Amino acid sequence: MEKTLKTQTDLSRYDNSWYQPGSFIKQLLWYVTNRLFINTYLPYPMAVKRFFLTLFGAEIGKGTVIKPKVNIKYPWFLAVGEHTWIGENVWIDNLTMLTIGSNVCLSQGCLLLTGNHDFTTSTFDLIVKPITIENGAWIGAKATVCPGVTVRSHAVLTVDSVATSDLEAFGIYQGNPARFAKTRILTR
Amino acid sequence: MEKTLKTQTDLSRYDNSWYQPGSFIKQLLWYVTNRLFINTYLPYPMAVKRFFLTLFGAEIGKGTVIKPKVNIKYPWFLAVGEHTWIGENVWIDNLTMLTIGSNVCLSQGCLLLTGNHDFTTSTFDLIVKPITIENGAWIGAKATVCPGVTVRSHAVLTVDSVATSDLEAFGIYQGNPARFAKTRILTR
Amino acid sequence: MEKTLKTQTDLSRYDNSWYQPGSFIKQLLWYVTNRLFINTYLPYPMAVKRFFLTLFGAEIGKGTVIKPKVNIKYPWFLAVGEHTWIGENVWIDNLTMLTIGSNVCLSQGCLLLTGNHDFTTSTFDLIVKPITIENGAWIGAKATVCPGVTVRSHAVLTVDSVATSDLEAFGIYQGNPARFAKTRILTR
Repeated sequence: MEKTLKTQTDLSRYDNSWYQPGSFIKQLLWYVTNRLFINTYLPYPMAVKRFFLTLFGAEIGKGTVIKPKVNIKYPWFLAVGEHTWIGENVWIDNLTMLTIGSNVCLSQGCLLLTGNHDFTTSTFDLIVKPITIENGAWIGAKATVCPGVTVRSHAVLTVDSVATSDLEAFGIYQGNPARFAKTRILTR
Repeated sequence: MEKTLKTQTDLSRYDNSWYQPGSFIKQLLWYVTNRLFINTYLPYPMAVKRFFLTLFGAEIGKGTVIKPKVNIKYPWFLAVGEHTWIGENVWIDNLTMLTIGSNVCLSQGCLLLTGNHDFTTSTFDLIVKPITIENGAWIGAKATVCPGVTVRSHAVLTVDSVATSDLEAFGIYQGNPARFAKTRILTR
Repeated sequence: MEKTLKTQTDLSRYDNSWYQPGSFIKQLLWYVTNRLFINTYLPYPMAVKRFFLTLFGAEIGKGTVIKPKVNIKYPWFLAVGEHTWIGENVWIDNLTMLTIGSNVCLSQGCLLLTGNHDFTTSTFDLIVKPITIENGAWIGAKATVCPGVTVRSHAVLTVDSVATSDLEAFGIYQGNPARFAKTRILTR
């Protein structure tokens, strides 16, 4: 391919040894548990999902519902409030803390992404940044929330949109990257 | 999080009891059948898929093909014409009627979405709206059709685009939300 | 639906008999192997994945890593360089040659799409076009690369963006269709 004197990516020198999300055995046990009880179409009762998630360190408020085929990376980095919905095929790729408020809706197929890479370094350094989703927010079907983003109270990210920066309270955002479209007004 | 006097979402008061898509036992039987025969990589012959889908109330025209790993919510809300293709990993999330014409192509990974929520109400009321996809239309890979949309004859929704309103006949639409890009001309 | 004298799509006359990607038995064996060892959450060692992929004709350079639940259509149309990463849930839909360089990152959930249809013909003719992804490029999570595209050295396609034409070296591209956003500068 092209010849260049520019600095180039060298993934053989990638070093994420500073990142220690938990012991190997805990990660392995969760990997299996996730596959058997959470990331599956078998419709386990919420009590079963809650049992395993809290056993591995998640906080899950009362009334919260998790649909089938949800993929959760590390439950010990997950806190969810009350009466929140996590839809079918949602992918919670939480390499670090994901804090979800109450009365939040994560619609089917959405992706919460906490890992990134520093593309200005040849070693493509890992960057992890927490995500916060405040009360009453709605993440639309197949939408994506990027690392470090705060989705403020009652903000809406529309279907398949991509939040690359914070979403203001009661704002409705659309597109890739998501732009403010209009204000959400709750009439009753 | 923030203090406000605004009306806020309260999903503990969510009430979709008016929505009755079918008896519990029918839903349960379909859930299992879908997982075993339709939403699977096991490459069952089309005759087997047709048998189960029509048993549960779907209309499927002759020559129509359904690839592996297609996820269908309720077959009794599905009518498909002749010589239509439903690609791998297509997600038919039909809480209400989905009508697909003949010679339609639903490419791999696309999503047909009939459920929505009224985000102006604190109870986040469920809204279901039918989708119609007319003859000769093409829904591109990973594209999404939103509730209530009619995709008119021979319209094209390009890869990963999102149809939030009706697509006109022989129009090609792109983006999120999808905008008219150009006219489709069939030369032979 | 509408009455028209225009030429209309007729998928009953679709003819892809010219497209011969390999013997039926080879396709069938790979279909099963893919499902058992590659397109699965079972975390097989890379040596096992490499064994089966190279057995079926793929070239995989040293240090390359393939995460779980990767879907590969035809490994005999796949060449990957060294120290490249293929993330969880990546979909390599390679109906023809996909050439990936070294030190490339394909992030989770991205789609490489080599098949298209000629929507100007009533027979919706199959079109297959190779994809090339050069050294050091980064395809973001859930992004899509369309048929015939060359992603040049160290280009970046951001999260959920869609590359419909070639991406220039060291360019960062965003949106659907992806537009040039800025230049990637590697500082060290």
